[in-house]
Amino acid sequence: MSSGWPPIRKGIVKISFVVTARSGRARTGRLALAHGIVETPAFMPVGTQGTVKTLTPQDLKACGVQILLSNVYHLSLRPGLKILEKAGGLHRFMGWDGPILTDSGGYQVFSLAAKRRIDEKGVTFASHVDGSAHSLTPENVIQFELGIGVDIAVPLDHCVQYPCERAEAEEALERTTRWAERSKKEFILRQAQDERKTLVFGIVQGAMVPELRRRSAQQLTGIGFDGYCLGGFSVGEPKALMNELLPAAAENLPETQPRYLMGMGEPMDLVEAVEAGVDLFDCVIPTRHGRNGVAYTSEGKLNLKNAIHAEDPRPLDPACRCEVCRTHSRLYIRHLFQAQEILGLRLLSFHNIWFYSTLMAEIRRAIGDGSLGSLRSKLSVAYNGGK
Amino acid sequence: MSSGWPPIRKGIVKISFVVTARSGRARTGRLALAHGIVETPAFMPVGTQGTVKTLTPQDLKACGVQILLSNVYHLSLRPGLKILEKAGGLHRFMGWDGPILTDSGGYQVFSLAAKRRIDEKGVTFASHVDGSAHSLTPENVIQFELGIGVDIAVPLDHCVQYPCERAEAEEALERTTRWAERSKKEFILRQAQDERKTLVFGIVQGAMVPELRRRSAQQLTGIGFDGYCLGGFSVGEPKALMNELLPAAAENLPETQPRYLMGMGEPMDLVEAVEAGVDLFDCVIPTRHGRNGVAYTSEGKLNLKNAIHAEDPRPLDPACRCEVCRTHSRLYIRHLFQAQEILGLRLLSFHNIWFYSTLMAEIRRAIGDGSLGSLRSKLSVAYNGGK
Repeated sequence: MSSGWPPIRKGIVKISFVVTARSGRARTGRLALAHGIVETPAFMPVGTQGTVKTLTPQDLKACGVQILLSNVYHLSLRPGLKILEKAGGLHRFMGWDGPILTDSGGYQVFSLAAKRRIDEKGVTFASHVDGSAHSLTPENVIQFELGIGVDIAVPLDHCVQYPCERAEAEEALERTTRWAERSKKEFILRQAQDERKTLVFGIVQGAMVPELRRRSAQQLTGIGFDGYCLGGFSVGEPKALMNELLPAAAENLPETQPRYLMGMGEPMDLVEAVEAGVDLFDCVIPTRHGRNGVAYTSEGKLNLKNAIHAEDPRPLDPACRCEVCRTHSRLYIRHLFQAQEILGLRLLSFHNIWFYSTLMAEIRRAIGDGSLGSLRSKLSVAYNGGK
Repeated sequence: MSSGWPPIRKGIVKISFVVTARSGRARTGRLALAHGIVETPAFMPVGTQGTVKTLTPQDLKACGVQILLSNVYHLSLRPGLKILEKAGGLHRFMGWDGPILTDSGGYQVFSLAAKRRIDEKGVTFASHVDGSAHSLTPENVIQFELGIGVDIAVPLDHCVQYPCERAEAEEALERTTRWAERSKKEFILRQAQDERKTLVFGIVQGAMVPELRRRSAQQLTGIGFDGYCLGGFSVGEPKALMNELLPAAAENLPETQPRYLMGMGEPMDLVEAVEAGVDLFDCVIPTRHGRNGVAYTSEGKLNLKNAIHAEDPRPLDPACRCEVCRTHSRLYIRHLFQAQEILGLRLLSFHNIWFYSTLMAEIRRAIGDGSLGSLRSKLSVAYNGGK
């Protein structure tokens, strides 16, 4: 750990991150956390409201999921800290005993809440659930994350949309840095150093300006975090622009610590970001698109709402060994969507999470044996028509 | 078998029904079907559209479910016979390899379809799905059931609502008998006698008139079926009236064949009907009420939408060993309902089906050791305040 803190004395594992193999900028690693070990690169399914939609913790284990993402904005509004504490923390609340990372929800304040106001202190807003007044500050976000016992805490940040003026991007990045300082201070104050169970990551901002991204990375590594998030991507920018910026944005960050690209993405996005040196991902795509009838397969996407599947007795993906593909046919799953049966949403969510988990395992293997290029080509044929 | 047919030569089991123990009118039995053995009394979860809502076949197996119910009305409209044949029959379509009974859907025509017309030939109606014109006849219902390969086929009947005039009840019962004759004739014509994989049950009607129930039973046993359904209950009549009629209605039927009470019911209804000599049940209650937030437990019903559960870290039923009760708390499940998360519907459906399956196993054990009365008293305290 280059964060300057000693490792924990108690707990299941000694918290640490070790790079285990490299292939170009891509690397595999082992991130040991209080609730278990995460082999990276890893994908975190999104459990915004304390559940990965339609799936149980047992399902997620069966899919090979190593770590989940949840969200301070949503959890603090509902069910709220009191009930989460009553439950014995977020893990026991959800029935998930593996690692959990929480995003602060700064992004959600801007996309979901009404009457938003941002100032140096933090953000105030009206809940999208019941209109009640709330605020998130760097301090109360860290307090909440430590209070519910997450494995990785992400501090409050100020994210900007695409496109935005340079001055606005600069202001947001400087504020994110000042908030990061306050977050780390609060974190040190609240967590006894010899009983560390939670890591804290910093969030790099800087919009689409390489110079600002570099400055943000320098400021955050100066403060010192256990890992770094690449924030402010996946906000509407062209994919080519992100691919151009990502390698340098990742290279600004210490080789010895995990890098987490927030909110991405499609299968090809994951492979390309891994090639740029990214270790962690989260995205709603596999579950949200699953609920919309889309299956991710080794041969590309299938939309089960299309009539072409109405009489097709094949599994979603003949190469897949998940329970859904071993049990059910395309024509059955299409019928479930036609008949508006909840089971359809569940089966595609399960299959897609399995597909993403399996893809990450293939990526790790390919980094180990130097075949990432050929995996990328295979995926590119399936997802981009070979481009 | 008193139906006059020889047992099947091929298939997984020799189709048969054997009574294995008695306690008063109540009895346990073994119903051997082409897709497996059903220990009776048994409860059939309802999979109207080819799925027990929110649950997988693996879930149903885990809950101890032995046999499912599905419905000709729904399946014939969507996905239709062509797709079911393409899938290789209803079992492969659903991914369920255990026994299936199909109701004809005469009842659904009256509760769901528009432009209904009933005459001696059968019923014509407009589909509730797309308004297209359809008809069900005694012959095409049997053809459909044999075509999709069910274990137990139920013929088309004419069901009346409560209350109804005696003349109307009499006309419906006489028509049901004439349709039963045509159904059996079609059944014999279509299924080679030395390769029997499907049983056919007759449906007793007669509304709330003991004399008509007796006449219907005599007519149907005269035709000869593999088992008998008690139809026309659970149509809005007072519970006391049904309890009064049921023992005689069951006694009109042969001791050597299974009796199936259609569409019932609450836990106390099941125990009381078992005491009257009933062997098979189906009902939407455990899944439909589950989706409405109601859990069935050893201590009675819980409505998880009630605020009283908001901070309760106990499982739904501390006495229950299902996966939901071993993993999740009341406060979590209530949160899922508050947050409108699909997982809540799924968890209560699973728990309730487990509860019903376990209750039936307890009923079978109690018949075996003569303790049905004390099981009834225990349930009565939990569900009827001891009345």
